[in-house]
Amino acid sequence: MAYKNKFTSEIQNIISEDEWIIEEDNYDPRENLVYETLFGLASGYMGNRGSHEEGDVRRTLPANYIHGIFDRSEAFQRELCNTPDWNKLKMYYECEQIGIESGKDVKEYVRILDMKKGLVAKHYVSTAYDGRETRIEIIKFLSRKNPRCGAFKVFVTPLNYEGVIEFENIIDGTVTNFIDFPRFRVKHLSTEQVCEFSDFGCYLESNTRDDKTPIGTGTAVEIKDNDGNDRLKSRTFKKFGEIACEFLDADVKQGETIVIEKYANICTGRESDNVKDTVLNDLETFVKKGFDNELEDHIKEYYKLWDMADLQITGDEKMQKALRFNIFHVMSTPNPNDPSTNIGAKLIHGEEYGGHAFWDTELFILPFFNYVFPEVAHNLVEYRYRLLDKARENANKNGYEGAKYPWESADTGDEECPEWTIEPDGTCYRCYVADYEHHVTAAVAYGANRYYKFTKDKEFLDGMGLELIVETGRFWVSRLEYNEQEDRYEITKVTGPDEWHEPVDNNAYTNHLAKWNINQALKYLKYYKENDKVMYNNLLNKIKLDEDELIIWKDKVDKIYIKDKEGLIEQYDGYFNLVDAEIDEWDKNGMPILPKSLEAVKKEDRCILKQADVVMLMFLMEYDYDIDTQRTNFEYYEKRTLHRSSLSPSIHCLMGLRVGDYERAYEYLCRSAYVDMTNNQGNTREGIHAASAGGSWQCVTLGYCGMSVDNNGTLVFNPKLPDNWEKVSYSINWRGSILRILITQDDVIINSDNCNGSFKYIVDGEERIYGGA
Amino acid sequence: MAYKNKFTSEIQNIISEDEWIIEEDNYDPRENLVYETLFGLASGYMGNRGSHEEGDVRRTLPANYIHGIFDRSEAFQRELCNTPDWNKLKMYYECEQIGIESGKDVKEYVRILDMKKGLVAKHYVSTAYDGRETRIEIIKFLSRKNPRCGAFKVFVTPLNYEGVIEFENIIDGTVTNFIDFPRFRVKHLSTEQVCEFSDFGCYLESNTRDDKTPIGTGTAVEIKDNDGNDRLKSRTFKKFGEIACEFLDADVKQGETIVIEKYANICTGRESDNVKDTVLNDLETFVKKGFDNELEDHIKEYYKLWDMADLQITGDEKMQKALRFNIFHVMSTPNPNDPSTNIGAKLIHGEEYGGHAFWDTELFILPFFNYVFPEVAHNLVEYRYRLLDKARENANKNGYEGAKYPWESADTGDEECPEWTIEPDGTCYRCYVADYEHHVTAAVAYGANRYYKFTKDKEFLDGMGLELIVETGRFWVSRLEYNEQEDRYEITKVTGPDEWHEPVDNNAYTNHLAKWNINQALKYLKYYKENDKVMYNNLLNKIKLDEDELIIWKDKVDKIYIKDKEGLIEQYDGYFNLVDAEIDEWDKNGMPILPKSLEAVKKEDRCILKQADVVMLMFLMEYDYDIDTQRTNFEYYEKRTLHRSSLSPSIHCLMGLRVGDYERAYEYLCRSAYVDMTNNQGNTREGIHAASAGGSWQCVTLGYCGMSVDNNGTLVFNPKLPDNWEKVSYSINWRGSILRILITQDDVIINSDNCNGSFKYIVDGEERIYGGA
Repeated sequence: MAYKNKFTSEIQNIISEDEWIIEEDNYDPRENLVYETLFGLASGYMGNRGSHEEGDVRRTLPANYIHGIFDRSEAFQRELCNTPDWNKLKMYYECEQIGIESGKDVKEYVRILDMKKGLVAKHYVSTAYDGRETRIEIIKFLSRKNPRCGAFKVFVTPLNYEGVIEFENIIDGTVTNFIDFPRFRVKHLSTEQVCEFSDFGCYLESNTRDDKTPIGTGTAVEIKDNDGNDRLKSRTFKKFGEIACEFLDADVKQGETIVIEKYANICTGRESDNVKDTVLNDLETFVKKGFDNELEDHIKEYYKLWDMADLQITGDEKMQKALRFNIFHVMSTPNPNDPSTNIGAKLIHGEEYGGHAFWDTELFILPFFNYVFPEVAHNLVEYRYRLLDKARENANKNGYEGAKYPWESADTGDEECPEWTIEPDGTCYRCYVADYEHHVTAAVAYGANRYYKFTKDKEFLDGMGLELIVETGRFWVSRLEYNEQEDRYEITKVTGPDEWHEPVDNNAYTNHLAKWNINQALKYLKYYKENDKVMYNNLLNKIKLDEDELIIWKDKVDKIYIKDKEGLIEQYDGYFNLVDAEIDEWDKNGMPILPKSLEAVKKEDRCILKQADVVMLMFLMEYDYDIDTQRTNFEYYEKRTLHRSSLSPSIHCLMGLRVGDYERAYEYLCRSAYVDMTNNQGNTREGIHAASAGGSWQCVTLGYCGMSVDNNGTLVFNPKLPDNWEKVSYSINWRGSILRILITQDDVIINSDNCNGSFKYIVDGEERIYGGA
Repeated sequence: MAYKNKFTSEIQNIISEDEWIIEEDNYDPRENLVYETLFGLASGYMGNRGSHEEGDVRRTLPANYIHGIFDRSEAFQRELCNTPDWNKLKMYYECEQIGIESGKDVKEYVRILDMKKGLVAKHYVSTAYDGRETRIEIIKFLSRKNPRCGAFKVFVTPLNYEGVIEFENIIDGTVTNFIDFPRFRVKHLSTEQVCEFSDFGCYLESNTRDDKTPIGTGTAVEIKDNDGNDRLKSRTFKKFGEIACEFLDADVKQGETIVIEKYANICTGRESDNVKDTVLNDLETFVKKGFDNELEDHIKEYYKLWDMADLQITGDEKMQKALRFNIFHVMSTPNPNDPSTNIGAKLIHGEEYGGHAFWDTELFILPFFNYVFPEVAHNLVEYRYRLLDKARENANKNGYEGAKYPWESADTGDEECPEWTIEPDGTCYRCYVADYEHHVTAAVAYGANRYYKFTKDKEFLDGMGLELIVETGRFWVSRLEYNEQEDRYEITKVTGPDEWHEPVDNNAYTNHLAKWNINQALKYLKYYKENDKVMYNNLLNKIKLDEDELIIWKDKVDKIYIKDKEGLIEQYDGYFNLVDAEIDEWDKNGMPILPKSLEAVKKEDRCILKQADVVMLMFLMEYDYDIDTQRTNFEYYEKRTLHRSSLSPSIHCLMGLRVGDYERAYEYLCRSAYVDMTNNQGNTREGIHAASAGGSWQCVTLGYCGMSVDNNGTLVFNPKLPDNWEKVSYSINWRGSILRILITQDDVIINSDNCNGSFKYIVDGEERIYGGA
């Protein structure tokens, strides 16, 4: 609890115990970008990176992202925009800035992320060149209660001097994306208005440059003493081009603490036709309510979230904290009230991949929300349904039928994956991902199906799921190519999950998922035809599908070329002819190293994979392969996979557990769960690895705790906890019932807060009944 | 010559020998602001502070000031604006900035001001956190040949790595005045246009906010190797709000040097009706001509300047360098082609006092230009004449007649000294300087008279000087107040040069200068009446002055209350009644300390002066006081002067020499000459102390070399060199003849390049004749 004693009692009284704390115990500017991601906060509405409020530190990428606020301008893609920075408050004494890097040195530095309460707090003593010492403590949160609000509170104490301390409250509209990457830097906003909220705060309004979506940002600052008395001496509004600024000051005695509260409210044209009035109104309400009251309400909301989302592993403290860390960021990110936005591959914590949704959402992140926050899961699948028309357009444009989802998806549903891309050294190359990586469309259908399978949300299936699954199935039917010689349907020129071999013919994963998608569509159509003829006919009419076409579907789907069902499965036609070698070296982080014998061989000519491909197939289509086949393929491909995608380790953990390779499974769990906390991919500065975070949750619940829903819709547990894990406990929302699940080495115990009825579940093959008489 | 060996031969071959060099031999960010002033360059058209081109250092106030570009906006006064910053070129390797503070550390740092050639050069090796070492050398100048042009050349050498080095060429339109002084910070410009000069450079156009004066700034960058081959790999223009930016890159091998040349051209609405076309055209010409050719032409211009302005002191190297330093900045500053601009109290090197002209110009700086560059001196006095109408308006507004010059003067001639001012801690107070410090009007007349006395520029006297001296005299006549009891005219409620006693009655300095001003007007009127009746009548008609009024003038002027002509002169009525004590302590810098007994006494109630007042009077009106009186007063007031104005020491040096106190004289010379090089007033960050610089030149030439022009217009020398000064040599422009003057311990030797005629001069009372038969 060393971190706690560094803080004054003011903050000590707020922050949580160690098991909820991620700590930065020493200031090193080289680590700033990583901590900006780790300590990023998300309110559901927006995300704000953990940059230092006092400003003027080296290596910083301050950012505030808002779900749904995308723009392209000169960028390669329409990307989540960095919106005006409200997270700044500079401090001065006699023109000398007070801050972490502004003086001679900094002592007692500590910064923490309190995951339990959703806040960041820090403490340090800044020593100026003339020996003046100032203690600074800051506590910051983005309100979960009022997610368009953010605030922080600064405690300033001149320890060995006194005088006038000056403040600059800033809203910075000059922000860009890729601030420290000059080659890519783009300014997505134009500043339209910078003004004062009379005697009260300041306001800056920007438009996105392409769509002219307004973004209003308002802030207000109060300066008080510890007893709440007003200590503001003077306040002057200043406009500096695209920067709104308030100058404020206060007289402070030696050893006395003054408290500066900065309130921010943000509103975009997506929520209001008059963003300025909305901001003014909401900001006034926020200030009136006060920092402490809002924080209290915010913490209560986090308690509610954690009541559902917490996962406790007794016996593995480090993994426990890592799981909480991953859950914290995943659960905080999506907008629970907005089905028109999704979750970016880096959550809302960084700008790599432009805030776009990938198949990561459906296959890595959605399971967590299905089980824990099904209402959010509904949003995520509804997001895809809302973009179905655009997916139809996308199929049509590419010469196909049905609905083809884009590899990268922003707000419009257009393909946002750029055709051309550029390496950091300036080399341009044609990017074929969007052209070939068709499997995303099956993942979208898989996600919708999985959501339904878990929730039995019939309304969703009726109104959205059915149409989505049928239209994606229809895409695959049109995508098939007939091989007369073999009398079979093939899919050529695609890229499977493993992106180092592109394009290839008859990728096992893609062919299999395509077949699954068409079959699933046919299955649902059959169900509706038999059970709900009206809805069936409505759908056929709506999408201009007739039964003759379905006969062709059935014919084709049975003739889809599926690689062997047993034994070693070839990733794609010709994969087994590649130059082969097994991985036999690992670096100090346990990351596999390319076999020396393959160094001179081109990526596409060697057997080495970037990430799980056949292994991924087996994980998803577990009922289609016996366990020996799964083991054979895991063992073969695992020795040939470099895991250069963070999507790979969690799947390898899950498959390792399935085939009984517990040692490797745990290694992969660590690689997945610690990816950002240890920055083991080296790019945590760009944001949180969302798929890895969701995958880590799957590893523990679906893997170690062996939870699944079988084809009859029954909840199943086949736990296989590591020896040192005494127990795991977590909660799920099982079709409305909040279940408290406890997995021990010997048993599975389920309790519920609210389940009045009864349900069947299976533990290690044995049927049990919860509740009832 | 340690500095020279640090540079590579490329720069070694350019820079001058040590006696011309001001060196920063070690990097300390705390010293940045001082060096930005010391290493500021001025082209005559503009001034550019010596901020680091690579950017991102702590403590920096980058600024580019342009003569005549003033704006008020929310400031307290219409001030010289900080105009767009063209002095930036950031460098990156794989997103990591290369610069002084960007990496782990910096080695071999040296930066020099080469005064002989008017350039700044630096060298260092930056070590990145990963051990990469990059050698950076930069050489910069503002072209004296084409003073709207500035350029710098960067030599970049990756010492132990290779790859793509990226550059960001920036024109920053977000600039403000008082960047690091948040209470006062003001943005004077609005950015009107940010665009590309197609495939060639970028352009930013701003307007001053009050007058909408356009300021166009264009830059172009070339990347070459040491052999002049083009090495630019790619170039992209980017607009970031009020910032114009070019992204550029180049491949560089280990140990190879690439050369980046940045060219800038600036033009305002004061020079062109189409600033953009002018900038584009001139920038193209500049780039075509090339950095090295322009630098060569620039250096030739500096050689011409130094040919006139250099002053050599054999036997006192340190003082020699200090004099060169002061001369360098003074001679570089004014615009030789623009009589509508003047010289600010901080030259054009900082923003304190808003770039305004004070009496400093006439009494401290003008003598240097009179003797060395009379054509510039003409501009300085013409500036006042051009604002004569406004001075008339100013007199009228205040209830006086004639012409009253403002205490602080910008471009319009309005009084720019604010009525209210604010302390750094936020305390507002009423500022009475403009209300009471009337003596500036006499200084303006004194300057015009001194210019004429030295140059005998009759055209100036006819067309400007006469009218100016008469109208200022007329002001004083109207300013006089009749004291019936004493039957004399008094001037009450004024502040003399000593600003710690305000307002006072019958300040000896003010009364005496007023009398001198009226008498001088009457003298010239008499001369014209007798010698040029047409011009005399024209003037009287023009300014509506009749001879009846002149009779009143004569009556009044003789009755002006002048304090005693001998013995100790009271600074103003009642000064001798103040609480008295002599200074008897000095700080480690030799600055006097307020006597302890007076610490509790209010400024206005104690005898202690801020700066020379009666001593200043005696310096200017030397013929009106015998040497004993001068000595008596010097000794008395010197013991009571704290020299809190940098205008004070040089006058005390000059008066010390006059009264034979050589020891103190030299102390005061040091205090004056080293004021900025040693930052002995602690505010060099705000700019060069212009009056001190001009005063130091006067100390050596008018003081130690005893040069003057007597009332007959004869050049006089009464040298009194310190024992350790073997000789002093310098040049003057004596009414068209370039005189090379050599003062030794025993003699005065004059040579001339171009004097064909002959003239009389006096050395130690002995008449000599130069030239002739």
